[in-house]
Amino acid sequence: MDFTLSPQLQEFQLQLRDFLREHVYPIEKHFDETRFRELLPDLEKARARVKERGWWAPALPKELGGMGLSLLDFATVSEELGRSPLGHYVFNCQAPDISTMELLHVHATAEQKERYLQPLAQGEIRSCFGMTEPDYPGSNPVWMGTVARRDGDDYVLNGRKWFCSSADGATFSLVMAQTDPEGADVHKRASLFLVPTDTPGWRLVRNLPVMGLAGQDWPSHAEIALEDCRVPATSMLAGLGQGFALAQQRLGPGRIHHTMRWIGIAERAFELSCQRAVFRQLSPGKTLADESTVQHWVADMRADIESARLLVMRTAWRLEHLGSKEAALDVSLIKFSTAAMLGRVLDRAVQIHGGLGLLDDLPLAFWYRHERGARIYDGTDEVHRASAGRRILKSWK
Amino acid sequence: MDFTLSPQLQEFQLQLRDFLREHVYPIEKHFDETRFRELLPDLEKARARVKERGWWAPALPKELGGMGLSLLDFATVSEELGRSPLGHYVFNCQAPDISTMELLHVHATAEQKERYLQPLAQGEIRSCFGMTEPDYPGSNPVWMGTVARRDGDDYVLNGRKWFCSSADGATFSLVMAQTDPEGADVHKRASLFLVPTDTPGWRLVRNLPVMGLAGQDWPSHAEIALEDCRVPATSMLAGLGQGFALAQQRLGPGRIHHTMRWIGIAERAFELSCQRAVFRQLSPGKTLADESTVQHWVADMRADIESARLLVMRTAWRLEHLGSKEAALDVSLIKFSTAAMLGRVLDRAVQIHGGLGLLDDLPLAFWYRHERGARIYDGTDEVHRASAGRRILKSWK
Amino acid sequence: MDFTLSPQLQEFQLQLRDFLREHVYPIEKHFDETRFRELLPDLEKARARVKERGWWAPALPKELGGMGLSLLDFATVSEELGRSPLGHYVFNCQAPDISTMELLHVHATAEQKERYLQPLAQGEIRSCFGMTEPDYPGSNPVWMGTVARRDGDDYVLNGRKWFCSSADGATFSLVMAQTDPEGADVHKRASLFLVPTDTPGWRLVRNLPVMGLAGQDWPSHAEIALEDCRVPATSMLAGLGQGFALAQQRLGPGRIHHTMRWIGIAERAFELSCQRAVFRQLSPGKTLADESTVQHWVADMRADIESARLLVMRTAWRLEHLGSKEAALDVSLIKFSTAAMLGRVLDRAVQIHGGLGLLDDLPLAFWYRHERGARIYDGTDEVHRASAGRRILKSWK
Amino acid sequence: MDFTLSPQLQEFQLQLRDFLREHVYPIEKHFDETRFRELLPDLEKARARVKERGWWAPALPKELGGMGLSLLDFATVSEELGRSPLGHYVFNCQAPDISTMELLHVHATAEQKERYLQPLAQGEIRSCFGMTEPDYPGSNPVWMGTVARRDGDDYVLNGRKWFCSSADGATFSLVMAQTDPEGADVHKRASLFLVPTDTPGWRLVRNLPVMGLAGQDWPSHAEIALEDCRVPATSMLAGLGQGFALAQQRLGPGRIHHTMRWIGIAERAFELSCQRAVFRQLSPGKTLADESTVQHWVADMRADIESARLLVMRTAWRLEHLGSKEAALDVSLIKFSTAAMLGRVLDRAVQIHGGLGLLDDLPLAFWYRHERGARIYDGTDEVHRASAGRRILKSWK
Repeated sequence: MDFTLSPQLQEFQLQLRDFLREHVYPIEKHFDETRFRELLPDLEKARARVKERGWWAPALPKELGGMGLSLLDFATVSEELGRSPLGHYVFNCQAPDISTMELLHVHATAEQKERYLQPLAQGEIRSCFGMTEPDYPGSNPVWMGTVARRDGDDYVLNGRKWFCSSADGATFSLVMAQTDPEGADVHKRASLFLVPTDTPGWRLVRNLPVMGLAGQDWPSHAEIALEDCRVPATSMLAGLGQGFALAQQRLGPGRIHHTMRWIGIAERAFELSCQRAVFRQLSPGKTLADESTVQHWVADMRADIESARLLVMRTAWRLEHLGSKEAALDVSLIKFSTAAMLGRVLDRAVQIHGGLGLLDDLPLAFWYRHERGARIYDGTDEVHRASAGRRILKSWK
Repeated sequence: MDFTLSPQLQEFQLQLRDFLREHVYPIEKHFDETRFRELLPDLEKARARVKERGWWAPALPKELGGMGLSLLDFATVSEELGRSPLGHYVFNCQAPDISTMELLHVHATAEQKERYLQPLAQGEIRSCFGMTEPDYPGSNPVWMGTVARRDGDDYVLNGRKWFCSSADGATFSLVMAQTDPEGADVHKRASLFLVPTDTPGWRLVRNLPVMGLAGQDWPSHAEIALEDCRVPATSMLAGLGQGFALAQQRLGPGRIHHTMRWIGIAERAFELSCQRAVFRQLSPGKTLADESTVQHWVADMRADIESARLLVMRTAWRLEHLGSKEAALDVSLIKFSTAAMLGRVLDRAVQIHGGLGLLDDLPLAFWYRHERGARIYDGTDEVHRASAGRRILKSWK
Repeated sequence: MDFTLSPQLQEFQLQLRDFLREHVYPIEKHFDETRFRELLPDLEKARARVKERGWWAPALPKELGGMGLSLLDFATVSEELGRSPLGHYVFNCQAPDISTMELLHVHATAEQKERYLQPLAQGEIRSCFGMTEPDYPGSNPVWMGTVARRDGDDYVLNGRKWFCSSADGATFSLVMAQTDPEGADVHKRASLFLVPTDTPGWRLVRNLPVMGLAGQDWPSHAEIALEDCRVPATSMLAGLGQGFALAQQRLGPGRIHHTMRWIGIAERAFELSCQRAVFRQLSPGKTLADESTVQHWVADMRADIESARLLVMRTAWRLEHLGSKEAALDVSLIKFSTAAMLGRVLDRAVQIHGGLGLLDDLPLAFWYRHERGARIYDGTDEVHRASAGRRILKSWK
Repeated sequence: MDFTLSPQLQEFQLQLRDFLREHVYPIEKHFDETRFRELLPDLEKARARVKERGWWAPALPKELGGMGLSLLDFATVSEELGRSPLGHYVFNCQAPDISTMELLHVHATAEQKERYLQPLAQGEIRSCFGMTEPDYPGSNPVWMGTVARRDGDDYVLNGRKWFCSSADGATFSLVMAQTDPEGADVHKRASLFLVPTDTPGWRLVRNLPVMGLAGQDWPSHAEIALEDCRVPATSMLAGLGQGFALAQQRLGPGRIHHTMRWIGIAERAFELSCQRAVFRQLSPGKTLADESTVQHWVADMRADIESARLLVMRTAWRLEHLGSKEAALDVSLIKFSTAAMLGRVLDRAVQIHGGLGLLDDLPLAFWYRHERGARIYDGTDEVHRASAGRRILKSWK
């Protein structure tokens, strides 16, 4: 088990860092999730540069126009891109599209691939994923209210979803719905449907106001109503009752992407903190960096980030080499422990910056409020800790 | 030392709670710091109701039209009003005006009182306080860049302030500036000036974008430029070199107001958490409240809030009965320890709510991001912990 | 609700502090739970001095030779005595005897009082309490293995107890045993028996080795076997099935005694830490007290202790004035939150002392290891947090 | 950089685990640092078995009779042996002898090697290291009171050391003493001497009472007085003024040994916790393992241990491949972060065991009290956090 970086990957990492500083950080300065569309022209230019360099869609297979990186190599790329809130978007490996692409690549029909996967892989359209519901707990993935009723060659969907990220402006959605609400096997009750967003009955109720801001376009999280929303039966992905299995399958690599992105955030927050500490004078000639409290924090942050990264990398290695079943415990462990690390690091970074840490002049405040969700989305801390704990304890019985 | 509540105060507390539920929570639902002005008509109606009931400006002396409550009694009122982000505003005891009024009441000239204090006390105008500067650390109150140069009968101010809360729409500002930048006694270098905001050279550079949002009107924090801003020498409050002393004096009771407001926030967050826990089903028939983890959190929050309140109340008692010098240590202790309690409670409340905790559908998300500042403004945790620690250790030498 | 100290009590507090410094700290230096009996002559002298001053058994009613202090006043005395591991013993208000005396005072027959309560109140004998069992969880007080079978005019007890504190050298024990193991009302299954330790079948298996040391005499915790141990039916206290009720009754005030004792420990640890910080030089002329980290810790400890004490004092007030039912939630809250405070303070105190903090040259190391139990005995943190949480949440349903 | 285990090492690890279970855990049951000598016959038998299997002194080079493992491979062995308080002793790689051997191997004269290193490597004698002093802070390694005065061909040592581990019964000591107390280069003021413990003037004042117990023989920590203690000048190791450099050199690998030993302790504590959780019934049919709180703890412990081990392993790799200068930051990071992990894990393990966790029936209580020192010895948390922080911040200036 060797999850250290190859020389090529190390070089790529540095190239990415430079690229972000030169081409993404300048856009980042104007990043505002409520006016994201104003940035699109600049973002398109940056995306064109990425394509020129042959770095487009690093996680996608080459036949889809991507770099075809392994999960392990992409982990490092995801960290690097995570240093900016816009990094993944510029490289077309942003959530939720990256997971949608992975899923369609395996489970879509030829027609679906042509119509949805290709343009998605090219960055021409966007997608969203409708799973969580306002009236049902995200912690119980087999209990939901959305129902898809068979009607001739169609399914008719009714229900309500929320935290449907990036629905605003998406061309299509993947929607989880119960096809056998009373089924004996609770894990087979739901199926997954590909539903274009212009289907009658698919309605974006609102972009959710998250921590003060209802975003727009890609950086947004919608509430969606499905009202007698009719789709052909061929819209179902991977067969009847496969919804839960597909959602689980989607989450494994997704959690590597997320946790490595968080580590990228933590690294940037650390970098900003060190820069601030050596710059900010407390009195003539004495800087924050001379305070033992700040020294302690910097050391804590460093140890925290380093050990979190090692654990994620090892998990990526195991996921890639041993498969998702063998790595299930590892995936749960990194989900909650990396999110906790991120919370600690961001909190310290804000405190080191004082008032400036609260301002949008730096990306810290965005992350502080937006990544509070890291301990909630894709399974709360509590869900993962309980699940990991049970899995461990079972082996001691 | 008895800081328990009189029966009258207990009754008033319940009346306030009902009043907020009936008249303030409905406005709170539409609270958005970026469009605060849209709420002003509704807020004026609520203020009129407060005046009718004789509850206007509870912390102000009766001769200024207030209720004349003691600091200790107002502490409880401040907690109660803190349950809504709009509570203090509706009762005209919001920061920074409440502290400005207290200061002008003691130190303003008759003319200043008539022109500024009276309308402030009536809620007809607003004020702001310019102390912190972008290029100097807030932790060092005797080191600043703003200078007031004597010129005949005037002073000419130059410098830059930020986190000048509520400057947007304020009629006047109090501005701290060095009048003797090289003075041997560093605590006598600065003086405090009353500067109308329409004075030439007084410029609102921007409303700072705090945690995603540049607010508006009262809920805003501005960056201010003073560019050859000329005021008559009579604008100086309480004499040459008194700036530092006035700022300190202002902070003592101000910290009681803030910490009790935080306790009110914590109580509301607790209330929302309990309501959510008994309502939210995890599976048919089983609620969040049945989870031992949630039970533990609720117990922790309860103990945390209770002990924080007792410490603040005792500090208020000591401040009122023994004076600010005797209570200086207590004031530092409650500043950082109550802010820490607030952070813990809000974090738990968000987690109990899951995705909903991130949404502006409830005030939790507002507080989560906005009150991150509680550990920074009016002296960071580190400033207060070091100051309290030194004060204690000195007594053991 | 006024739980502040009367002038008399404040004076008594100072007298106690002086008394401990003069007469108890010197013995404390030689305190070693494994050779406690060697200290008995010195302890007897100190006890004689206490009696002379009229301070004997401060928590006991005057008719039993005590001071007859209220629970609230005794709380302060318990804190003061807690500053030494020997404080309570010297004043004859040590656990478990103090709770036994309170219980016998209410529930013993005249004969039992004469034979057991009187000499106990005089400090001539000692007692122990057999409740927890090695094979049953302490968290479930209605589930136990010890059974008392009726046999004519006698009961015959069989079972095993542990953490039976101070059993070594005790004259009698109170033993909880099931008298109706299958009873429908689980809270009525057990009864409480007064069992002299010389009763055939009562056997001290071992003094438990706690954190490295099996103590001796009073500072010890035994495992007890009851093997066909026969006692007359009159040994049952307060009637059939009253065991659980008596145990609960015993715990309320007992938790005030314990938590205030912990606060006394925390205060002594704080005092030692401050003394060490100003004394210990890190380099010529620079002491630990000059380190901002140490200043922060000292401030944290101060805030932590102060707020914990206020919460306990309020609970004592409520217990005394409103009764144990009204104060049940408060009692749970202080149990776990004060124990947590104690853990934090002791950990910091050890760290401030460095290597010296690990040595028995100071009482810190004794408390660090011995009071780890504070989060376990008389109900673990988890039992109290869950119980408090449920109680709170029930009121929101 | 690949620090994963070779198949051979993985197999050795399992063999070691079995060996410990079979031959060391049975002795461990009787382990009591106050009566260690009683165990020596059994320990000698176990040592003989180790020699038979060819596992003796795994960290020593083959020419000294060891296994010649690399630092990286020994790291895993050290973890495995750490699962018992007696593991390292049985394999003759216990502190402080292991570091003494490494040092003598490089710096001793041929005569010293024959007389001291050979029998040490054979496990026939023991050594100790005198560095820390009661009156000087361990955090300042260049400030000490012990002086070695040149007198003809001899040096005469005077001073006092403490926390001189395993001095009781040691054949010789290494003693740090100032040879140039006023030297301009503070790092060159001290030299290191090999002093046989039977040298006149070398006196064991006491075995320090650590957390309740003054140990004996190997598991003990002594206070040593040097009173006109005369040694020949040839006793000086590695030349005049090399004391500080030797001490530093000794610490790098030593910290890998310690941190990996701590990880072994944590693993054993984790194992005991899981076993307890699935065994202990809270009520008929319901175990601790069914409690979500316990599940959360177990998950936290797992993530904590895994990431700590990865960080230590990477540090060992860097130390071995890049040298101690390149790895200096890493070494500081693992010192404090692994110690913190150990503290958290042991605390949780004790709590999971309830009362049993406080008893010496399991090794948890021994570690809980004894390894509190992990955050103090070989550099306190504060020393390492400040040092690491400064090192990091310097690179940002």
